Formats: sequence, structure tokens, C-alpha cells
Amino acid sequence: MPFTKKHILDVESLTPDEIALILDTADNMKEISERSIKKVPTLRGKTIVLFFYEPSTRTRLSFDIAAKRLSADSISFSASTSSIVKGETLFDTAKNLEAMNPDVIVMRHSSAGAPHMLSKIVDTSIINAGDGMHSHPSQSLLDMMTVREAKGRLDNLKISIIGDIAHSRVARSNIHGFTKMGSEVLVAGPPTMIPIGIERLGARVTFNIEDAISGADVIMMLRIQKERQESFLFPTEREYARVFGLSHKKLSGAKPDVLIMHPGPVNRGVELSPEVADGPYSTILDQVTNGVAVRMALFLLLAGGVRHDDH
Amino acid sequence: MPFTKKHILDVESLTPDEIALILDTADNMKEISERSIKKVPTLRGKTIVLFFYEPSTRTRLSFDIAAKRLSADSISFSASTSSIVKGETLFDTAKNLEAMNPDVIVMRHSSAGAPHMLSKIVDTSIINAGDGMHSHPSQSLLDMMTVREAKGRLDNLKISIIGDIAHSRVARSNIHGFTKMGSEVLVAGPPTMIPIGIERLGARVTFNIEDAISGADVIMMLRIQKERQESFLFPTEREYARVFGLSHKKLSGAKPDVLIMHPGPVNRGVELSPEVADGPYSTILDQVTNGVAVRMALFLLLAGGVRHDDH
Amino acid sequence: MPFTKKHILDVESLTPDEIALILDTADNMKEISERSIKKVPTLRGKTIVLFFYEPSTRTRLSFDIAAKRLSADSISFSASTSSIVKGETLFDTAKNLEAMNPDVIVMRHSSAGAPHMLSKIVDTSIINAGDGMHSHPSQSLLDMMTVREAKGRLDNLKISIIGDIAHSRVARSNIHGFTKMGSEVLVAGPPTMIPIGIERLGARVTFNIEDAISGADVIMMLRIQKERQESFLFPTEREYARVFGLSHKKLSGAKPDVLIMHPGPVNRGVELSPEVADGPYSTILDQVTNGVAVRMALFLLLAGGVRHDDH
Repeated sequence: MPFTKKHILDVESLTPDEIALILDTADNMKEISERSIKKVPTLRGKTIVLFFYEPSTRTRLSFDIAAKRLSADSISFSASTSSIVKGETLFDTAKNLEAMNPDVIVMRHSSAGAPHMLSKIVDTSIINAGDGMHSHPSQSLLDMMTVREAKGRLDNLKISIIGDIAHSRVARSNIHGFTKMGSEVLVAGPPTMIPIGIERLGARVTFNIEDAISGADVIMMLRIQKERQESFLFPTEREYARVFGLSHKKLSGAKPDVLIMHPGPVNRGVELSPEVADGPYSTILDQVTNGVAVRMALFLLLAGGVRHDDH
Repeated sequence: MPFTKKHILDVESLTPDEIALILDTADNMKEISERSIKKVPTLRGKTIVLFFYEPSTRTRLSFDIAAKRLSADSISFSASTSSIVKGETLFDTAKNLEAMNPDVIVMRHSSAGAPHMLSKIVDTSIINAGDGMHSHPSQSLLDMMTVREAKGRLDNLKISIIGDIAHSRVARSNIHGFTKMGSEVLVAGPPTMIPIGIERLGARVTFNIEDAISGADVIMMLRIQKERQESFLFPTEREYARVFGLSHKKLSGAKPDVLIMHPGPVNRGVELSPEVADGPYSTILDQVTNGVAVRMALFLLLAGGVRHDDH
Repeated sequence: MPFTKKHILDVESLTPDEIALILDTADNMKEISERSIKKVPTLRGKTIVLFFYEPSTRTRLSFDIAAKRLSADSISFSASTSSIVKGETLFDTAKNLEAMNPDVIVMRHSSAGAPHMLSKIVDTSIINAGDGMHSHPSQSLLDMMTVREAKGRLDNLKISIIGDIAHSRVARSNIHGFTKMGSEVLVAGPPTMIPIGIERLGARVTFNIEDAISGADVIMMLRIQKERQESFLFPTEREYARVFGLSHKKLSGAKPDVLIMHPGPVNRGVELSPEVADGPYSTILDQVTNGVAVRMALFLLLAGGVRHDDH
């Protein structure tokens, strides 16, 4: 099956077949990063712009390494140093970038929908690297890759996502992704952090973390933003950790082969106790490794098509 | 004709033949950016340092992409992160850079003449990427390339430059460039923004924008710096736009095939109304595309010479 | 002799044979930077992360150029833009970096011992690019390379290091390095800047700069940190320069073939008078050139081993 999408804007718009193709491609890409010479010439002569309006070294680094391992030229263009500070509109910045003939623009933006708007302005492939609280498709794809690797499948699993669901693009993307692939998603957290109507995305809701843990094949803990405390969304870190953090003791109610996931960076002792973060079921570092592989797969599928105007 | 200049410091010091050679080379380079594999190995093993004392992502990005498309290694070195903050002199910073054996240093600096001084300190090719209000030769060359592409020639044209002439290195470089190639340059703007004696560079002056528009083959609008308002150089943006901004209505007095240029970033609704900025005669995005081509040409001409000590 | 060290953490842990091998390799590497095509494919497909918690363009630039001349992919990851600002522990940041499969991590950190800790956390080669006031091994190696180049040997020399010994990782690394190679090291400076017990590292102490100059084969001047003045470690710059700065006049007591070294950036008129900084015995710029060669050698020795799982 050829991949025909031009952009990766969200998980919603991908079909299960497309998701499977991306993950199969990522499995192949992962092998490249395990070689002594971690580089293939596939995207030589392609220009990838990393266009980040929000600071994020972790995700930018992963995309940058992915680009370089495919021999593409990657160039960072960040809001703080760009013309944006001179008051240029997103429209004009986008048209200017396009005029330099990039092949892919990877965009992170604090506003939901900005990459979608960008994809309508320019004739370049866009990858959404996180837009506001909306979507973070490459994160969801690397999470699905990690689960498929460990469990051998993506259907008929119980996936529990625990934490600040309301402010999490990771949660939104994963609800779409895992339900689309045939699994059940349960979300849990304090009532102040569960948005009304989240069931419409296909998730079940519980306010009881024991319910979420019990019988889960995958427990995905979300990062708590400490600044939310000032908005009274949770009382104190210690209180949050006591009720919604994952400790060795709470895990006693879980399946023996449960996977513990976290998109990072972890607040140790808050979302996860150290012994759980570093324990045998934690996939946190596999997620990071798979992140490079998924991003290589996306670059390859969007920009790797052989055209016949090559010289 | 071989290119014998070692540096590109300003347009004044280039002969018409040298300008024509740069533009011919840039025409060839442009084709590379239109390929599927946008890269040639010509400058493999060359080191290009982008040495920016003033923030400028747009220009830096263009130079960076140009370097990578020729397979050169480009390395950014910016004032805010460099030893400069520790009080090192420009002399010492320059000698230190030189000791790492770069092939070309691209320099932007807020002081007029800084790249000229650098070229006397180090034995490396220097490209001036903008020095104070003095010169911006690669911008002028890309403007000339854009005009030549559209008009088929650079002589016997009427070029009108409108806006803040006094504070514009783009205006200065283009007055030199276009008059040198045999065209007439007219400058227009509020009296506070037209420097006394600008005629000595070869430009005619008018304070009436209709005069500048009428009969012009090219209208080049300059970016207004909003902070000039605080210096009382213009009353308000709205007033500036009404008198010196280019609207569809004002364009009715122009030639039917006039080109509308702007070095970017545009203040929409100030220098240009949106319908003019995005209209059929606007070359703004061609200028950006040609910017990469011109910078590739400069790198090639300065660093591409075959030497016989290669291994 | 094969190089068997996995990390370059400090000079103390290198044997004289290992230092000699690094310097021999650096001599070969230096020749690459003198070619027209300054690049060899040796480390193609290797990923080098420049992980800088302290700003340092000069050293980062040198490592970056070194990586590119060996065809490695180098990626900068700095504290100000990284997850570190979100409160992630060094342990977690390190494990995350490791999960992206880099071959070498070059680390600068304000805390002594941070690279040593990193080397225990991750299974990746670590190069210490400066940790607090402890060590800066690549600087000491480039200093030794520069002396060996000029003097033809590293033993039986008198090396005088003058300035703020207490706060200098360069001084500590060079005391270890030069004494290990069989030379004598003398340290001089104001009493407030000579740490008690420095003799235990193998250096002799004097508070008299004439003693340090007389008979020295090498005089290494250290950079004075102007902010130390506020801590009352020295009275004024002028006073410091008068007593501990190196002027043409003071040099009259030196050997005719003395080398004048400085790790840069120089405070002209403070540590060195301009005529000494730019004089015939100054090796300041040779040190910069050799810095690239030494860093290439370190990358090659740590990451250049041929493995047989290559594809």
C-alpha cells in the first residue's frame, strides 16, 4: 500500500491501515539506529525545517536526529530568533519558508490548529509536532509502536491514561489512536482535570485510579504541569502523588505484564515513584528510542517518494 | 571570465561584469533548488561560519540552506552565545575564527564597516550580510536577479524605492547596484526619511509618491521600523500608510507591467495593502527564492575554486 | 597501541602513552584541516551530542567543526532550551539522550564531576568539555600538542602558569598533564588566587611573577574573571595587570625561545599586553587551531573503531 497522505496533522485523519504502515516502516527504521553506521542516504538533498514556536528540545532533538539519519538537511527555525518577533504574520512567515523550497516543515505551536492552517497556506508537507492542547501525532505513533512491540498487537487491549487529561494533547491523540486500532481507552484523574464530554472521543472515564489500574494492559501516566497548581487544579504535589501517582504498592492491583508509559519528562515522585519509573515494566526509554524511528518513518513516507525529475 | 574578488563587502566594489557573472551563476544555482534532490557536492569539505551579531533568522536561514545545498558545512556563531559577551574584541574573535580554518565567514553586524574591517584582519573570504545602515549586497543582488528574470534586462529601467531611505542598507545597496547596471533610481519618502545628499549616490529624489509610481518599471517598498515613530520620523502607522503605503488605488497610476518588490518582512497594511502584497505583480516570494540562489552563487564563486592540493 | 579508554573525563586518568597516542592522532588530524577539502568520511553515521549546561561558543564551535570534518552528525543540546528547565533530573536527561543512540556525548557543566556521573549513568562515550573548576582535558591536550609542536618534546620543560589558579580548570588539567609527561610546573599569582595544597597536584608555587618568568620554557597566562574583583580577590584590573600581567618589559627576563600561551578569550591589557598577545612567541592562535585537531582525535579514538555489524 503506498502512503498517500501529504501531511501528518493529527491521528484522527489517519486510517488504521495508514497507522499500521507507519509503524511497520518505523520498525524498519529502528534497525538503522542500531547499526554502527546509523545513516542511510535515502533523503539526501531533502530540506527539513524544524519550525518551533514553543521551546522543546526533547522533541526537536528527536526530529533532528531522525532527519540526519536519513541524510536530510535539517534546519531549526525558532520563534524567539525569527522574524516573528518583528510582528510578521504566520501567513507571511509560512510563505517565506515555502519560497526556500523545503520538503517537510515540522511545526510546534501553542495554538491548536496552527499546523492545519499552515498546511492550507503552503504546498509543503507538514508534520504537527504538537499544537496547543489539541494533537501530538508523532507522540501517539511512538506510543502505539511501543505497545505493539511489547504486546504484539494493538487491538483488544485496555489502555488507561492517568493524569491531567484536560490539558494533554498526548491524551487526545492516544484516545484517537488506540480506539481506532481496536483497543479500549480509559481516562482517569482528578475531576478538575477530566474535560466534560471526553467520552465523545471514545474514552471511558473514571475518577478512581484503582479502577484504571486494575486489568489494564497499559498504564500511561501524564506529566503534571506544576503551574496548574496555581490555577487550583490540584492541591499540592504531595497530595496529587498520593492519590494519582503510581507507586509500587498501587501497582499490586495491576496485571503482571502491564506496561507503564510516560511521555516525559517525568516528575519523579509525583506521577511515578522512582522504583516504578525505573522498574521492569516501564517503557519510558523505549518510547524515546521509538520516537526517533517513528519520525524517520514519517519523513520517509512524506519525502521519500522517488520522482523522475532527479538529476 | 573568472571571478577574482575575494570578498563580497558591498555593491559599490563590484563591476557590472562581476554582477552579471554572479547573476548568471545564481540562475544556474536556482535550478538545483527545484530538483527533487536539492544538493550538489561542489563545496563538500568547506566550512562556512554564519557570524551574526544582529538577530536575523530570515537571512541566516537563507545562507544556511544555500550552504547545505552545496554540501558545505555551515556553523552558526551568534553574538548572544559567543565569547563576545565576555568582552572579547572583534579583532580577537575574528582571529580565533580564522584559526579554525573556515573558508567563508558570513557576517552581520550593527556597525557599518565591520565586515570591511574583518576582511582586513583575517585571510578568509567575507560576505557582508548587512552592516548597520551601510550595505546589504546579497539583498541587492537577489533584487537585481529578480528584476532581470522578470524584465529580461537591468538597463534602461526606472526603479523607484519608497520609504525610509535614510535608515535602509537595502536602499543604499540598490541605488549602487541598479545605477551601475544602467538604470535610473528614484527615491521617495517623507522628508524626515530622505537623507540629505543621497543624490550623490546617483539617485533622484521626490517627496511625492505619485511621481515615484508613475512610469516606474519597479517599485521597491521598504520596511518601516515601527520604533522610528518614537523618534518622530513619522506620525502614525495609519498616516504613513495613507501617504506612503502602496494600495491598489495608488497603483492605478503605474505601468501595467510594474513589479512590486519588498525585502520583507512586510508590515501588511502599512507599506503594502494585502491585495498589493499578494497581487500578480508582487515579487516578494520570488525574491526569497532567488535569495537562496544568489547566496549559493556567492559561496560557489568565493569557495568553489579547484585547488590542486586536494586529497 | 589501541586506545582502550571509553571516556575522556580528565587528564589524571590518562596514561602518558595514551596522551602521546592522542597527540600523535591529533597531528594527523591537523593535516585534514589544512586541505582544500577539509573532510574525511571516517565517522559518517555517528551521532555526537554537544550537551552544554554552560554557555561556551568557542569550545562548542571547536567540537562542532571537529565532528563535521570527520563527517559525524553533531547536534547541540543546551540547558537553556532543554527539558532541564522543566526540572528534569540530570539522570533522566542523560537516560533520554542515551535512548536516542548517540555515539559520543560532549558535556560541559558548572558542577565538578558531572561528566563522571554521566559516564556511570549511560553506556555512551563521554568527553568532559569543562566541569566547574575541576577539569578541561581537551584544553590541556591542545596545550600539550602546541608545546610539543614547538619544542619537539614534553619532558624536561619548565612550565609556568600565571593567574587565577584557584578558579581554573585549565590550570588543574595542565598541572596533571605536563607533570605526567615529565615536565616541571610552577604556578604563580596573587595569594588570594593560589589554593592551599595545590602542591599536592605536583606544582611548585611562587607569588613572584619574575620567578615564574625566569627560565620558563612556557608561560601560560590564565584569563582573569572580572567578576572576581567583586569578591575582593584582586583590587583593580590595572593593579592586577601591573603586577601579574605579562608585558614586553617583564618578558625581558624570559628565555629567548619562551612560548606565551593563553586559553582565551584574552583580556587585552590585563593578562597580556597587546604586543605580547600578538608577538612572535604567542601561541594563542596555534592553540585554537590545535583545539580542532585534538577534538577530532578524541572523536576518532572513541568512536572510530570498526565494528563488524556495519551494513
